[in-house]
Amino acid sequence: MLYSFTNDYSEGCHPNILQRLLQTNLTQQPGYGNDTFTLESVAAIKQLCQKPEVDVHLVAGGTLANLIVPGAFLKTYESVIAAETAHINNHEAGAIEATGHKIETVATLDGKLRPEAIQPLLNKFPEYHTVKPRIVYISNSTEIGTIYTRQELQDLYAFCQQNNLLLFLDGARLAMALSAEKNDLTLAHIAALTDVFYLGATKCGGLIGEAIVLANPALQKDFKYYIKQRGALMAKGRLFGMQFAELLKDNLMFTLGGHANQMAKRLAVRLQGLGYSFLSQPETNQIFPILPDALIVELSKKYGFFVWRKMEEGFSAVRLITSWATPQEQVDQFLEEVQVLSERLR
Amino acid sequence: MLYSFTNDYSEGCHPNILQRLLQTNLTQQPGYGNDTFTLESVAAIKQLCQKPEVDVHLVAGGTLANLIVPGAFLKTYESVIAAETAHINNHEAGAIEATGHKIETVATLDGKLRPEAIQPLLNKFPEYHTVKPRIVYISNSTEIGTIYTRQELQDLYAFCQQNNLLLFLDGARLAMALSAEKNDLTLAHIAALTDVFYLGATKCGGLIGEAIVLANPALQKDFKYYIKQRGALMAKGRLFGMQFAELLKDNLMFTLGGHANQMAKRLAVRLQGLGYSFLSQPETNQIFPILPDALIVELSKKYGFFVWRKMEEGFSAVRLITSWATPQEQVDQFLEEVQVLSERLR
Amino acid sequence: MLYSFTNDYSEGCHPNILQRLLQTNLTQQPGYGNDTFTLESVAAIKQLCQKPEVDVHLVAGGTLANLIVPGAFLKTYESVIAAETAHINNHEAGAIEATGHKIETVATLDGKLRPEAIQPLLNKFPEYHTVKPRIVYISNSTEIGTIYTRQELQDLYAFCQQNNLLLFLDGARLAMALSAEKNDLTLAHIAALTDVFYLGATKCGGLIGEAIVLANPALQKDFKYYIKQRGALMAKGRLFGMQFAELLKDNLMFTLGGHANQMAKRLAVRLQGLGYSFLSQPETNQIFPILPDALIVELSKKYGFFVWRKMEEGFSAVRLITSWATPQEQVDQFLEEVQVLSERLR
Amino acid sequence: MLYSFTNDYSEGCHPNILQRLLQTNLTQQPGYGNDTFTLESVAAIKQLCQKPEVDVHLVAGGTLANLIVPGAFLKTYESVIAAETAHINNHEAGAIEATGHKIETVATLDGKLRPEAIQPLLNKFPEYHTVKPRIVYISNSTEIGTIYTRQELQDLYAFCQQNNLLLFLDGARLAMALSAEKNDLTLAHIAALTDVFYLGATKCGGLIGEAIVLANPALQKDFKYYIKQRGALMAKGRLFGMQFAELLKDNLMFTLGGHANQMAKRLAVRLQGLGYSFLSQPETNQIFPILPDALIVELSKKYGFFVWRKMEEGFSAVRLITSWATPQEQVDQFLEEVQVLSERLR
Repeated sequence: MLYSFTNDYSEGCHPNILQRLLQTNLTQQPGYGNDTFTLESVAAIKQLCQKPEVDVHLVAGGTLANLIVPGAFLKTYESVIAAETAHINNHEAGAIEATGHKIETVATLDGKLRPEAIQPLLNKFPEYHTVKPRIVYISNSTEIGTIYTRQELQDLYAFCQQNNLLLFLDGARLAMALSAEKNDLTLAHIAALTDVFYLGATKCGGLIGEAIVLANPALQKDFKYYIKQRGALMAKGRLFGMQFAELLKDNLMFTLGGHANQMAKRLAVRLQGLGYSFLSQPETNQIFPILPDALIVELSKKYGFFVWRKMEEGFSAVRLITSWATPQEQVDQFLEEVQVLSERLR
Repeated sequence: MLYSFTNDYSEGCHPNILQRLLQTNLTQQPGYGNDTFTLESVAAIKQLCQKPEVDVHLVAGGTLANLIVPGAFLKTYESVIAAETAHINNHEAGAIEATGHKIETVATLDGKLRPEAIQPLLNKFPEYHTVKPRIVYISNSTEIGTIYTRQELQDLYAFCQQNNLLLFLDGARLAMALSAEKNDLTLAHIAALTDVFYLGATKCGGLIGEAIVLANPALQKDFKYYIKQRGALMAKGRLFGMQFAELLKDNLMFTLGGHANQMAKRLAVRLQGLGYSFLSQPETNQIFPILPDALIVELSKKYGFFVWRKMEEGFSAVRLITSWATPQEQVDQFLEEVQVLSERLR
Repeated sequence: MLYSFTNDYSEGCHPNILQRLLQTNLTQQPGYGNDTFTLESVAAIKQLCQKPEVDVHLVAGGTLANLIVPGAFLKTYESVIAAETAHINNHEAGAIEATGHKIETVATLDGKLRPEAIQPLLNKFPEYHTVKPRIVYISNSTEIGTIYTRQELQDLYAFCQQNNLLLFLDGARLAMALSAEKNDLTLAHIAALTDVFYLGATKCGGLIGEAIVLANPALQKDFKYYIKQRGALMAKGRLFGMQFAELLKDNLMFTLGGHANQMAKRLAVRLQGLGYSFLSQPETNQIFPILPDALIVELSKKYGFFVWRKMEEGFSAVRLITSWATPQEQVDQFLEEVQVLSERLR
Repeated sequence: MLYSFTNDYSEGCHPNILQRLLQTNLTQQPGYGNDTFTLESVAAIKQLCQKPEVDVHLVAGGTLANLIVPGAFLKTYESVIAAETAHINNHEAGAIEATGHKIETVATLDGKLRPEAIQPLLNKFPEYHTVKPRIVYISNSTEIGTIYTRQELQDLYAFCQQNNLLLFLDGARLAMALSAEKNDLTLAHIAALTDVFYLGATKCGGLIGEAIVLANPALQKDFKYYIKQRGALMAKGRLFGMQFAELLKDNLMFTLGGHANQMAKRLAVRLQGLGYSFLSQPETNQIFPILPDALIVELSKKYGFFVWRKMEEGFSAVRLITSWATPQEQVDQFLEEVQVLSERLR
């Protein structure tokens, strides 16, 4: 295979992390997140959040973060509201339900939740026969690559506060969202406009690690017990701490996210130029061009990507993902191939 | 209030049960389902099932039965497939998810699940990122009063067997289903065409009790441990045993179900005669006439019933439920009222 | 078998309950605990508690009550402290652990928990690697028939309050405890000196039903959601309501408990007279005489009882339980038998 | 602090792992354990096990492995048998119970489980009121540093097979156990004499990762679903694969375990020479010398270690742990200090 656009976790990590691992390898450090690297990364996150009272916990992966949050904060009869397309609803093997909680889904066109779509779930009758909604789960960027605007997030958070709902933002690709061209949010906005979110390293320059940020102080008590109980408190927390310590230096993570976005945009612009349309608006490093099935068959022989959904007769939407490490040459070579094949197959 | 058509559990129980309670009150009996009444009821169920190898366990209620079955038989990553309208999906406060399992829902027009609607849930990609469907949950009669034909049940069970799915039938109102005019199923068919089902007494002449029938012998081992663990194994199992012992004598339960159905039919025929249509085909003791809102307001002053759903401008579907104990005079008086009000409000 | 002293749930229920069932059978009532009988029983309990702010919920059985309380009130990493002999630790098939919570046990001589025995569990090191104790579970009377004094309960509750622990009292046999000869507690004391307790009908004159009393108002919010989710909210709550409505009239339940205690005392006094000792001090309707194995073999041919534990060579402790319905003639006949056999086997 | 003997996860990882990370950093790899490094490590484990039919899954940490095994394999009413001192019983914040399962504990003198100690748990009466034992959990080396002999493991496994129990070996420190002086077991023996075990990298030269080996083929179906559901399936599985790929080359892991053991032995021999006794027999890299409290106070000023337990008047057992990276000079310097202080304090 020439190159894989299947996901943004195909490569290792930014070299700075490996350098730091090498330099600090034999330093003795306390376990369980009490090491100096974790402290360094927590400090960096607090500063970016402009909110010193946030509490930060580093865990291994996105599904783990996604199940820890409802598991820790919900009473058993409380539910999570999410978009039908949400990762937690489709691609986590029932991890949320395994913590005992129902996901109530909302249909969306662009993967984004809005107050008017949530409202009907709050009007269910009668009480105590139904679950009680308590967490609103969103992701930024979303499963289909779109991003929230500041206004959208403000409106949603205000709605949540009015309705005693916690707003939880899955930020597995938050670095890409916050470095997107149309983005008008900062990490400080995220910390001000959610109750809990996480910032993912795995998909943006790190080897492993998601930083759960408890922005709402009411959620902070005893959280480490829950992390431990779920098997998510690592003896060598230094490994996680180092990812974030390096990725947050000079905003490296956002620079890397920006690169991924630019590579995706390069793909999008040229594919558009070739006359192809998209399933959702290309905004970050995941784009969903709708291509002829014949073209997809040919491309698949040389490139890796995921066929997302059958569309009208003879066409399918594919998902192309670029990463912090995607070389521009690979993008250009792929686009060449698309152009040549498109002409041949026409 | 003159009379309530709100549900079929407003009254006590058939007098035969009370008589038996009186006659046997001071007999000492072993606990936990080992009493002679339970043994008597189990024998009666086995005979009606024409399948001596079924295993029978009596529990207090429908939600308890509904959560015990998936809880006992599913691995944690396995899911339950149900109609969007299913009781377990909407009216049990997340009881299934609280056992750790996702419910995957299917849209239906008539509340009934069919193979072609389930098939897409089995084609999800890729494995181990999604839940694995394992139980198909249906109810007969359904949440909207419809019933399964023998052919429909045969097709569904064959499909389940081909796809390694367990078929679970919620029979909270099975007595009504099996005594419906259009019914062509017997309890023996149910036992032959499902893996597990329950037969409800609470809604058909009993005070309390649902008989879970493990029709598939592979499910029987150690089931009592699970019942005990869920708090569903009663010290005085005699109370449950007596309900079924009496209700199954001379098919009393099905006679009572038939009465409930006839009272509902009496309502349906006359309402139809008055020009009203129905949300779903009236088949059992739950009917859903679509009435003018003004009529509903007036009727509500004297009668109890549930307003099910807003329909076109000025109309709503209501749910009228009759029971084993509904007197024909109450039905007729209600219909009189409807007729008079309908004319006045026209 | 002539008579069974195996447990106190071998017989049906007090005739007053059956009379009330007969008289009210066809009255239509709302479901789910909103019926007039439940309201009547709740009012009676509030009055006996002398604490109008308690919240009362009726559920089917003791294991159900025992699992609902920790399930509803604990965070996942919080534990229950109980005596090693506790019912929840040994005889509920892991029902508490199935709600996700560890039981931490304390060895006791008389089945009763005291502050000094609990204290070491609070000193565990280090935090977040261990569970966090939160509920102290006791039963009155205990698994071995002993009862708490007012002073003991005061001390324990004070200790719990100082240590942020909830005190939960399993009152499956509270009627016997509160009618014991040495008892100096009332239901009002129980309501004042616990956070949550339940009063059992099943073992003291009822057919079914335990009344969970949330004495601590901080525990009351949304509790009915949890009951529903566990399958414990019954459609015909009238059945439960009627048990308590009748059993609490003129303190009937405590009169019945007193009778059970007196029958046990009659057994204890005469057995003591015959030279037999006891595993624990006979205080309520469960006594544990230590008898020669040869005598036990002979008695077992005519009487039902449970062999509790092997003791020194040739002796075992047996458990004899009397009930609200145990006839004095049966007690006397049994004692005759013991005397005759004791002489013969000497 | 001069040096910490607090645990064996204070340092980073063996340099070979860092080298491999550097060399392969930009290679694109499939996610979720399908990368070439994971395949390489799985092959190495299969070969060491001399059992090609084993199934291997890499997860992040020991608590995660410990909760995944019972969670995946137990029915809800089945329990885990473990030593009272077991890590799962004391130091995992109730992680096992949070999966819904009771731990039944057995008192031991040396941290090792033997058939005669387990037998009484299998004789509980009566069935379905109690949990049903199903997994026997042991660790090698144990929480107190001791190791199983081949005969002990054979006996235990035979007992488990006779009693329908699964034998699960926690191998967080298996590398140390198998490289201990008195050890007569190989990984092949472990694979032949357990149903499931794991081999830990975190505490023996790796940064992160435990390899769960499903030695019993009956356990293998669908296991990856469970791993995913628990949040333990990592996008960049390459990170875990690389740890084991390197650590298993030329038995590096066991060489490193041997070093840790030798450093501990060096401590033990000299401490013994100074007249100190031990809580348990020093066999691996965890030793528990009993030291005067005054000495402990002084040593604590320069060295890190854990005070394990108060012993007789004026003495406590401390835990000293050496690692794959512990320099001999640090050990000798510490011993010097002990000798000097011992003399001064005498």
